[in-house]
Amino acid sequence: MKRVMLTVAYDGTDYCGWQVQPGKETIEGELNRALSALTGEVIEVIGASRTDSGVHALGNIAVFDTDSPIPAEKFSYALNQRLPEDIRIQRSEEVSANFHPRHCESRKTYEYRIYNAPFPLPTVRLYTHFTYVPLNVDLMSQGAVFLVGEHDFKSFCSVDTQAQSTVRRVDSVEVQEAEDSWRRPSEFGGLRSGRQIVIRVTGRGFLYNMVRIIAGTLIEVGRGHIAPQQVEEILEAKNRQKAGPTAPACGLTLVGYEFPEEEIDGNSLK
Amino acid sequence: MKRVMLTVAYDGTDYCGWQVQPGKETIEGELNRALSALTGEVIEVIGASRTDSGVHALGNIAVFDTDSPIPAEKFSYALNQRLPEDIRIQRSEEVSANFHPRHCESRKTYEYRIYNAPFPLPTVRLYTHFTYVPLNVDLMSQGAVFLVGEHDFKSFCSVDTQAQSTVRRVDSVEVQEAEDSWRRPSEFGGLRSGRQIVIRVTGRGFLYNMVRIIAGTLIEVGRGHIAPQQVEEILEAKNRQKAGPTAPACGLTLVGYEFPEEEIDGNSLK
Repeated sequence: MKRVMLTVAYDGTDYCGWQVQPGKETIEGELNRALSALTGEVIEVIGASRTDSGVHALGNIAVFDTDSPIPAEKFSYALNQRLPEDIRIQRSEEVSANFHPRHCESRKTYEYRIYNAPFPLPTVRLYTHFTYVPLNVDLMSQGAVFLVGEHDFKSFCSVDTQAQSTVRRVDSVEVQEAEDSWRRPSEFGGLRSGRQIVIRVTGRGFLYNMVRIIAGTLIEVGRGHIAPQQVEEILEAKNRQKAGPTAPACGLTLVGYEFPEEEIDGNSLK
Repeated sequence: MKRVMLTVAYDGTDYCGWQVQPGKETIEGELNRALSALTGEVIEVIGASRTDSGVHALGNIAVFDTDSPIPAEKFSYALNQRLPEDIRIQRSEEVSANFHPRHCESRKTYEYRIYNAPFPLPTVRLYTHFTYVPLNVDLMSQGAVFLVGEHDFKSFCSVDTQAQSTVRRVDSVEVQEAEDSWRRPSEFGGLRSGRQIVIRVTGRGFLYNMVRIIAGTLIEVGRGHIAPQQVEEILEAKNRQKAGPTAPACGLTLVGYEFPEEEIDGNSLK
């Protein structure tokens, strides 16, 4: 018996999120189906993050136990043959039999992407949130500063939450314009420029919808509806209604996890 | 009567290319349908580039004549209300009644994007060609140099071509790694890096499949199957079989057109 950790990338557009739900297409469901077919065992993975419907990932984490003779690092190749093309394992490796991706120290990073231009651009529409109102990135950065550190994020949490405590620690919130690679129509024929704005948030745990409410609030700051220093007041109010709207799922991508070496090291058991 | 020029962006994934074909979804067909419904006239646009099935565009060009009272610059807004979300007008403007987007001086730029990593990344799969064989960008750049200038590109042209002459002028071919914005899983958890390589070609007209054959050939150079200086020999051979394969359509994007001011200026007639 060994415990294997998968790093999973997906395009969440066509899925009802990570978590298995009867009669719906989910990332977890596709992983369970592919793993069970591959190994002949009944496998149900443990996911690190139960991303919502429409949210994307470059590096979500899934863990499972197996008696399969397939070496841990070969699961990536074998699973990618059986998964739909909008889910791809980026890495597979053996981890400690005690490793549980939700019950351990970890940091994760999300990115929220905004396409800010007069008109939507079809080739980025699935992975960004479009807004034509010009956003001021400097103001957004100034507002973001107040979110860093340990705070009660009750104002930035869906009222549906089942969390016992709404205190969380955010390590960093950066707002920047994405360079180059999303090509700007502005270079050609004098078109007004389109640009991508990225909000990158790293922390040790997030409340339900927290990153999307942070994004929705910083968008309000960027358009001048909320002053940057009001973000501090919104935190202090501990009232969901004081923050901005929940920004749409398609702009959100779970970039990746960092775990302490000693948590995941499968060799320590050998 | 006025002549209006549209700058059209699209995600070509779900279309059988630009040109109207009976019973098939095409970009031109969608534009004709939306324009005719909007104006109440029977409108058939003239396109600048008849892109192939699966090819994307940030700035293809369509031109039409209309008696509609809608101001030329408002067509972008009105059409975007009626087009599917994978087609979006980026700009609309009045042009000279003599302007024809295929019968005039112009330069256009294409980009061919390659995702080069051990495993495909779902969130870039629709707009890049995936290859896991590591590509050497320096070698690709060295090979690209031989393509710049006026040459007989018969080796880089589909054998199905109906072109009278296969001589074309290429102004530039650049090969570079895209920076930053396509996030690299390598930043997280020690994953091996994934990267995007962009081949950007500007010229005054291209043969059928020419950019995709250039891309397919430079990929062979990048993986070490063809030496950079052999690109010159391939040109001289004037034989399609000497060049590399036609790279897949999904990696290709028509970035945009440049027309001389005097060709398009609608004010000159007023």
